[in-house]
Amino acid sequence: MHFFSSDFKLGILGGGQLGKMLLYETRKWDIQTKVMDTSKDAPCKIACNEFVLGNLLDFDDVYNFGKDVDILTIEIENVNVEALEKLEQENVRVYPPTKTLRTIQNKATQKLFYTDNGIPTSPFTRFAYTSEIEDSISNGGLQFPFVWKSAQFGYDGQGVKVVRKLEDLSRLPNVECIAEEMVNFKNELAVVVARNTKEEVKTYPVVEMEFHPEANQVEYVICPARIEESIGQKAVEVALKVSAHLEHVGLLAVELFQTQDNEILVNEVAPRPHNSGHYSIEASYTNQFEQHIRAILGLPLGKTDSKVAGVMVNLVGAEGHIGDVVYENIDAILEMDGVTPHVYGKKQTRPFRKMGHVTIVDEDMFKARRIAQQVKETIKVISK
Amino acid sequence: MHFFSSDFKLGILGGGQLGKMLLYETRKWDIQTKVMDTSKDAPCKIACNEFVLGNLLDFDDVYNFGKDVDILTIEIENVNVEALEKLEQENVRVYPPTKTLRTIQNKATQKLFYTDNGIPTSPFTRFAYTSEIEDSISNGGLQFPFVWKSAQFGYDGQGVKVVRKLEDLSRLPNVECIAEEMVNFKNELAVVVARNTKEEVKTYPVVEMEFHPEANQVEYVICPARIEESIGQKAVEVALKVSAHLEHVGLLAVELFQTQDNEILVNEVAPRPHNSGHYSIEASYTNQFEQHIRAILGLPLGKTDSKVAGVMVNLVGAEGHIGDVVYENIDAILEMDGVTPHVYGKKQTRPFRKMGHVTIVDEDMFKARRIAQQVKETIKVISK
Repeated sequence: MHFFSSDFKLGILGGGQLGKMLLYETRKWDIQTKVMDTSKDAPCKIACNEFVLGNLLDFDDVYNFGKDVDILTIEIENVNVEALEKLEQENVRVYPPTKTLRTIQNKATQKLFYTDNGIPTSPFTRFAYTSEIEDSISNGGLQFPFVWKSAQFGYDGQGVKVVRKLEDLSRLPNVECIAEEMVNFKNELAVVVARNTKEEVKTYPVVEMEFHPEANQVEYVICPARIEESIGQKAVEVALKVSAHLEHVGLLAVELFQTQDNEILVNEVAPRPHNSGHYSIEASYTNQFEQHIRAILGLPLGKTDSKVAGVMVNLVGAEGHIGDVVYENIDAILEMDGVTPHVYGKKQTRPFRKMGHVTIVDEDMFKARRIAQQVKETIKVISK
Repeated sequence: MHFFSSDFKLGILGGGQLGKMLLYETRKWDIQTKVMDTSKDAPCKIACNEFVLGNLLDFDDVYNFGKDVDILTIEIENVNVEALEKLEQENVRVYPPTKTLRTIQNKATQKLFYTDNGIPTSPFTRFAYTSEIEDSISNGGLQFPFVWKSAQFGYDGQGVKVVRKLEDLSRLPNVECIAEEMVNFKNELAVVVARNTKEEVKTYPVVEMEFHPEANQVEYVICPARIEESIGQKAVEVALKVSAHLEHVGLLAVELFQTQDNEILVNEVAPRPHNSGHYSIEASYTNQFEQHIRAILGLPLGKTDSKVAGVMVNLVGAEGHIGDVVYENIDAILEMDGVTPHVYGKKQTRPFRKMGHVTIVDEDMFKARRIAQQVKETIKVISK
């Protein structure tokens, strides 16, 4: 049986924007797909061969979904891993492997993994409950400011807060969590590593991320990063070390801090296509979604170099707007050179919700960055 | 009402590979689509919002299909134009306009259009029936060799034959046709012209086509063409003249001959995305499918320059193979740099049937061309 055959079926858990972009590639190669998502309005509902409504965190839903697929992958880590483990035992090929998912899914476990393997990361403390943090502060063990992270199922800034004073604690849910020392960084960087079933490994160029100060979401991703070559090399080395120890199959997006002292620290990782790799659709020889498919199918990995420089702007819901989405001035950005909007197809907008992204490519990275700024200032994601 | 709205619906007549590649772009922008095709196994059946089974040449099927869409486009010219004319009268926006389709659909009318507008093309004679050709030969009006073309519905070499001797005539259907003087050409070239509803016009770079000697199908498309700049300019001028007189909306692929005397003659045109523009998916700032959507929606046209050089190889069914398709050695070509296969998803192969294409991109056009040759020699489209 070959992947390019009607006997083969690829399962994807999660039918959001990442799944949708994966489906461009499965369509390109006529690979049969089956997708499960919690929402009947999921962007993936069309373009897959079979769509199943189900809860990604429910054992039975995930297990029943995965039973008749040949290879199972994810577009989101927050899935029922017990069900995946059972499927793995029954010879469904699950990529990323459940061992990788187990290490990553809990942020405390993920941090321990780094320290156990000599991978540089910021100092941290584990807490069974947020309420225990206060004791640690009063006995001097923990100092303001620090970064609070929910250990379970943090996604897109929802489970991450900067704590600057005692009062900030009262707004946090009382769950298993970690407190990380705040990193005084020069740059936030990311490296996407691809690793296939045959352990072939390739890295994409280091990208630079600019975050929105309030929403804790990426605002621009810039490829290549505006950093010294030696810093880039160090970032790639660290990312490869994480990749080797995690033994993932598929993509691994490694988010990194470059400190004031030019140290590289791992922030966190995602074992799947990632926002920091979206620029690759327009800029790279092999885009991250095709690369993920190549990796999990055991095909040779594609060239990760860029054809041109790329800058990505996230399209997030504007503040003060909740309801049916409108993309104001999308025509105007289409007049700018090298601009490609991606509209995810979510029907409802709300403040800071990821509704799409725009890639700007040019031979000259600085020109692309300038156009990206114009794009950002022109298009608005609002409600009707 | 805006295109990026759930109230808007784009209709596409024809659900083959071109429609399928158009759907990547409508998906990217979350544009609602409705597709009609004659085959229940059409590659477009998934990825559109609504699929309708129907005969593209049947008045009622086309009319009923088009009644509830806002904009109607085609992936193939062989559609019922009477139905489109009625839809146009009822304010459905049909792009290309039926006037353009009328001119192009009949090859005799198309040739007359060129001569009437002073557009260079090879000399030709019209015949109501192929059987009339013999008289013309015996009275010296027509000389061997010449190119016979069926006036109606020629597609992909099916309606085109080189006639070298009297016996060749017996193998031709007895239909309305033209006999064209055979052009002694140096190169076959093509220019894709985009023209939007606001009459904004852009041209893609001139590409060079290498044909398979037997099947009369394109084997390689090379961008940029290996020609002198002055020839390229002349080719673009001629293509723009055709575009202006045809008043099309959407893409127009203009196929050209460069003669031994460096004249540029129009061979034929297609008012839609075209095989000669497939390279643009990987090589251009704006691929031809996105450009077609931009044009028919009245959006600003995108940049037509190339990021890198591109060579396209058609994947056609190997001789001697009929049945369920297998893409032999597809893994091997994925190991080569800058190689992207596209598998159209047709279940059955037969000799010379277009089953897919492969794009090879590189900064260096000559390197891309060399890899394309390797691709061609490696992959085989065969039956099980």
